[in-house]
Amino acid sequence: MAQKPSIPKGTRDFSPVEMAGRNYIFDTVKSVFKKYGFLPLETPSMENLSTLLGKYGEEGDKLLFKVLNSGDAFSGVDYDGYKVGEENGKRFYNSNALSLKVCEKGLRYDLTVPFARYVVQHQNELTFPFKRYQLQPVWRADRPQKGRYREFYQCDVDVIGSRSLLNELELVQIVDEVFSMFDIRVCVKINNRKILSGLAEISGHPDKLIDITVAIDKIDKIGLDAVKDELRERGLDDAAISVIEPVLTLSGTSAQKISTMRGILAASEVGLKGVDELEELFGLIETSGVRQEVEIDLSLARGLNYYTGAIFEVKAKDFAIGSICGGGRYDDLTGIFGLPNMSGVGISFGADRIYDVLLGLDKFPKEAVSGTRVLFTNMGAAELRYLIPIAKELRLAGLPVEIYPDNVKLKKQFDYADKKGIKYLAIVGENEVNKGVVTLKDLTTGEQVEVTPAEIAEKIK
Amino acid sequence: MAQKPSIPKGTRDFSPVEMAGRNYIFDTVKSVFKKYGFLPLETPSMENLSTLLGKYGEEGDKLLFKVLNSGDAFSGVDYDGYKVGEENGKRFYNSNALSLKVCEKGLRYDLTVPFARYVVQHQNELTFPFKRYQLQPVWRADRPQKGRYREFYQCDVDVIGSRSLLNELELVQIVDEVFSMFDIRVCVKINNRKILSGLAEISGHPDKLIDITVAIDKIDKIGLDAVKDELRERGLDDAAISVIEPVLTLSGTSAQKISTMRGILAASEVGLKGVDELEELFGLIETSGVRQEVEIDLSLARGLNYYTGAIFEVKAKDFAIGSICGGGRYDDLTGIFGLPNMSGVGISFGADRIYDVLLGLDKFPKEAVSGTRVLFTNMGAAELRYLIPIAKELRLAGLPVEIYPDNVKLKKQFDYADKKGIKYLAIVGENEVNKGVVTLKDLTTGEQVEVTPAEIAEKIK
Repeated sequence: MAQKPSIPKGTRDFSPVEMAGRNYIFDTVKSVFKKYGFLPLETPSMENLSTLLGKYGEEGDKLLFKVLNSGDAFSGVDYDGYKVGEENGKRFYNSNALSLKVCEKGLRYDLTVPFARYVVQHQNELTFPFKRYQLQPVWRADRPQKGRYREFYQCDVDVIGSRSLLNELELVQIVDEVFSMFDIRVCVKINNRKILSGLAEISGHPDKLIDITVAIDKIDKIGLDAVKDELRERGLDDAAISVIEPVLTLSGTSAQKISTMRGILAASEVGLKGVDELEELFGLIETSGVRQEVEIDLSLARGLNYYTGAIFEVKAKDFAIGSICGGGRYDDLTGIFGLPNMSGVGISFGADRIYDVLLGLDKFPKEAVSGTRVLFTNMGAAELRYLIPIAKELRLAGLPVEIYPDNVKLKKQFDYADKKGIKYLAIVGENEVNKGVVTLKDLTTGEQVEVTPAEIAEKIK
Repeated sequence: MAQKPSIPKGTRDFSPVEMAGRNYIFDTVKSVFKKYGFLPLETPSMENLSTLLGKYGEEGDKLLFKVLNSGDAFSGVDYDGYKVGEENGKRFYNSNALSLKVCEKGLRYDLTVPFARYVVQHQNELTFPFKRYQLQPVWRADRPQKGRYREFYQCDVDVIGSRSLLNELELVQIVDEVFSMFDIRVCVKINNRKILSGLAEISGHPDKLIDITVAIDKIDKIGLDAVKDELRERGLDDAAISVIEPVLTLSGTSAQKISTMRGILAASEVGLKGVDELEELFGLIETSGVRQEVEIDLSLARGLNYYTGAIFEVKAKDFAIGSICGGGRYDDLTGIFGLPNMSGVGISFGADRIYDVLLGLDKFPKEAVSGTRVLFTNMGAAELRYLIPIAKELRLAGLPVEIYPDNVKLKKQFDYADKKGIKYLAIVGENEVNKGVVTLKDLTTGEQVEVTPAEIAEKIK
C-alpha cells in the first residue's frame, strides 16, 4: 500500500531552482572568505550531548534534537530508577532523565560551540591565529513558523587566537565585498560590549549587564518606550535609565558619537576601553576604503552572552527583513572546554534571509541560476550516432548539453526544453545527418539557422 | 570545570587540508554532472520514520538513527501499554515499540529513498525525465571500523522517467570524464540484472534470483568456490550451479561474451532482453569515444534488490580498494510511495574512497589544495595603513591574501607563513613605506626582491 509522502514539519526540500540560488550565495561568500585566508572546516552533525548541553541557556537545551542511542536503546534501562510516582497502578517516570539515559548524542545547534570544541580538541595541530569558515546545517526544535526552520544552514567565518582589531576590520571588509558582489546595499552596524559594560557600571548596576543587553537588544522590534519598561521590570531605577536612554538615541557622525561616549563613560575604565576599540576600528575602516555604509549603533546589543568586544549586525537598506548577518568578539569561548585566553571574533551570514533579499530585489544573476544551454533532439539511433560525438565535444568545451533520451514526438522534446528554460534546441534529423550540419533554434527568438558542428559552441556561448 | 572534548565514535572532523581535498572531489563531480544537464537537489537530513522504515531490509531498519521527538518526548507515554513482563516488582517494556512511540523522525540513511519520496511528492511540479544530482551526508548506526563511518557523504546522480539506454551511456561518460579529470585509471564493470534473472530461470530456480544475487555479489571477496558453497547452502542443486558457474568465469571481448550469453540464455526471454540491452549499451559506448576501460562482468551482481536492468561498478586500476562508484537501473523505486512505472537509473560516487585513492596515488593537484598566496607582515599601525589598501587591491584581483593580525616578532610571523604553506611573504617596514615598495620573499627559494605594489600580483601569480 502506498504511503502519502511528506517531510517533517519545519524542514524543507530544495528544488534545483532553489539550489541554484543557494549555491550562488554559498559560492560567493566562500570565494570572499578564501581571499582573506579563511579555510573550510566541517564538524560532525552529531555531537556528544555533553558538548552541547548548558551552552545555549536553559531554553537552548530544550531546543536540542536528541538522537536515540543505536542498537536497543531501551534495553537494560532500569525504569525503577527513573520512577517519580504511581497512581492507580500506573507509573510515571522522569522524562528528562530518561531521555538523557537513552540519548547520548544531539544534532548540532550552531557552528560556534562545535568550532570551540574543535579548536580545543585539535589545539596542538593548529597554527594560530586559526582562521576558518564553516557552511553547514544546524538543527533547532523551535516551533516552525514563517522564516523559521528546524533545519537551516549557517555560514560562519571566525578567527581565533588574535586580539588584533585588524580581524574586526577584515570581517567588515568581507561583509562589504560579499554584499557588493550581491549588488545589495547594506548598513553595517557596530557597537562594543565593553561600552555596554561601562554603561551598566555608570548607571550604578554593574551586575545588570545581561539584563541591560537583553532589554536594549529588542529596541528595533519593540521601540524605546517598551525597552525602558523592560529595564524597569528588570530592576533598573529611573536614575539608571536616564543614564542609558540618551545613549540609545545618540545621533551624529561616528566621530561625534565616539566623542560624546568618551564624555559619558569618563568614569568607567572598561567603557573607555570600548570607546578606544571602536575608534581604532573606525580608523582602520577608513584606511581600507570600505564602500558600504558602516555606522556606530550604540543600541546594538546582540543577545549572546559570550560577546566581550566588538559586535556587528548587517541590515539590507532596500528590503525589510531582520539582520542578514551578525557576530562579534568573544574572549573565552574555548574556556569551557579547558582552553582559556583564546580571544576570537566571527560573523555569521544568514543564507535564508539573504536568499529572500536577492529574490525580493530580483538580484539573482541569470547566468548563476541557468542550467543546460542546448538540447539535442532525439530522432532515432542513426541520428544519435551522429550527434553523440558532437555533444561530447561541446561538453569538453565546458558547455552544459543534454540529449533528449527518448525518441518521442518533437513536440514533447520542445516542451521539455521550454519547461527547463533551455535556450537552444539542436534539431538533428536525417537531413542534417546527410548534410553534416545541425539546425539550431533559439527558443526565445524563434530564430533558426543551419550550422556545422564546429560552429555551435561559438553560436550558443 | 573543563570537559575533555571529543566527538561521537564513527564521526569525523574535517580539517582545512582534508576539506580542500574533499572540495576538489565534490567540485569536480558537480562540474561534470552539470555538463550533462543534471541539477542539484537537497532533501532534509531528517525524514519521517514511516518514509525510511522497511526500505532497507530488516538489517537496515536497525541501522537507522532515530531522533527523539522534540519537547517532552516521554510525557504522556502510556508505559503500561508497552509492558511485556514483570519480575520481582521490576517491569520490562517493549523497547522497539517504545522507541517508535518517542521517535517519529530518523536521519537519512541514503539519498535514493529521499529522492524517490521527493519525486512522488513533487511529481506535478517536475519536468520528466528528471535529472538530479545530490551531495549530502547520510547516517548509519553501523559498528565503526576502518573506512566505515556513521556519517559520510554520498554523491548521487540519477535520471528518472526515461527507459532509454542513452541514460546509461551518459552515466558511463560521466564516470569516464570524472576519473579522467582525476587522472585515475579505472575499469567500469557492467552487467544486467535481467541476465541474472535469466540465469535463475534456466538454472531451474526462477524464485532464487535474490539468493543468486547475494551469493555471487561476494565473488570478489570470497572467491568462486565459496560462492558455489553459498549457492548450495541457499538451496541450489549441483545442476543449477553448473549452469551458473561458467558464466561467472566467462572471458573474452565484450562481443564474445555477448555472443556466448545469447547462446546460454536462448531459452529465457528476460535473459535475452538483458543481453540485448547490454549489446545496445556497448554499441552506444563505442560511438561516444569513452577513454577509460569498460567491460562486461557477468559476476557483477550488486546487493540492492531494487535494480532491474543495467548495473555498474567502478574500480581503480592502480590502487587496491573496493569499488569507488556503483549504481544501476531500477524500474519501480517510486512505487512504494504511490507512483508506479517510473523507471530510472543512477550511480553514486564514493567520496571517502576516491579521497583515499587520490591521496594514495598523490594525484591531488597542488593548486586545488593551496590556500593563501601571500602573507603581509605586521610591523605596526603606520605600516598597516600603508599595506591595507595594497592587500585590498590584490584581493580584488582574486588573490588570497593575509595580513598577520598582530605586531609581534618577525620570526613568529615567518613561522605562521611556513606552517600554513604560504609561498610568499610581503615584508613591509618603515623603509618600504618610505620608498613606496614591498619586499617580496619567496619562502621556497629564499629569493627576495623589492617590488612596487602594482608589480606584486604579476610576481606571485
